[in-house]
Amino acid sequence: MSTTDTPVDNGVNVAALLGAREALTAAPEAAQFTWRANCTWKNGTHSSSTIEQFFGLGEEQRHRQVYTFDADPPEIFASEDNGATPVEYVLVGLASCLTAGVAAVAQNREIQLRSVSATLEGDMDVSGILGIDSDIRNGFSGIRVTYDIDADATPDEIKALVAQSQKRSAVYDIITNPTNVTVEVR
Amino acid sequence: MSTTDTPVDNGVNVAALLGAREALTAAPEAAQFTWRANCTWKNGTHSSSTIEQFFGLGEEQRHRQVYTFDADPPEIFASEDNGATPVEYVLVGLASCLTAGVAAVAQNREIQLRSVSATLEGDMDVSGILGIDSDIRNGFSGIRVTYDIDADATPDEIKALVAQSQKRSAVYDIITNPTNVTVEVR
Repeated sequence: MSTTDTPVDNGVNVAALLGAREALTAAPEAAQFTWRANCTWKNGTHSSSTIEQFFGLGEEQRHRQVYTFDADPPEIFASEDNGATPVEYVLVGLASCLTAGVAAVAQNREIQLRSVSATLEGDMDVSGILGIDSDIRNGFSGIRVTYDIDADATPDEIKALVAQSQKRSAVYDIITNPTNVTVEVR
Repeated sequence: MSTTDTPVDNGVNVAALLGAREALTAAPEAAQFTWRANCTWKNGTHSSSTIEQFFGLGEEQRHRQVYTFDADPPEIFASEDNGATPVEYVLVGLASCLTAGVAAVAQNREIQLRSVSATLEGDMDVSGILGIDSDIRNGFSGIRVTYDIDADATPDEIKALVAQSQKRSAVYDIITNPTNVTVEVR
């Protein structure tokens, strides 16, 4: 509770999240999720991906609506810039995952957030993807995330919020640790 | 060239890409790119990220327009489903990166594509992110990508296209190999 006795409200239903944790502890098979995307090539390097269904809690689930994402490298890669670049989508995933975590952890710790913003930078030597130098990796050489957070909390409490979000972040884990990807042609 | 003597056209300017490769081989510092995202917390687990500027070819660059992406877990996570889930953005990045690569490699190999689509599935035991079991990772336990490709090529040539796209894919590299991420609070 803040000093004004106004309940802390970051818009996160922590009771529901803790209820989900309890329910999934009792029924671990319900915690097995499968997230999906469908991608259709448009022209050149331009594609359109849709997100709608996923599997979880033991059954097929559906977002409230279909989300559609166009992707295309920028014009300097001889493309038409019909959307964000694929690697930029990875940064969006990381930014939104850490930010959702900051809000959820703040709510659980009864810290009122006023504003949260993050800037992300991912460095990449494109000599890798262009096949100039096979010793240079195709992906990011590193990513920097910088948060600006205004909250009813000390600087140390704010740093601890961000650290706990990192610890529980799915996308942070995906980027910092290896994941097996199989690619097949039907 | 196809048997009808119609030039292969997948909409990829391979000459420009090869020109870029030549130019960047001569001036390797121009190959140092930095991709960026800015994220603002909205409410609850809902955030909005924008993509606009990046650095490359030795100077600041800008997309043709600002791309904005709302992210939010679905309602079963006590959220409002105001956008795709952060981990789904990672699948979009992977799908679009591999698909752009398929088109670029096909153009370079003079294979006419008629249609390319991919379905992606990422498995995740949410016991990790919910803090039920610290031995379970937060991210995907594995990702499956399945392509359906209709092209003027044999099944083996199509499989080779996809394999070469994987080999040069930035996002495939990011997901399958570890990347350092630093997170700071200003």
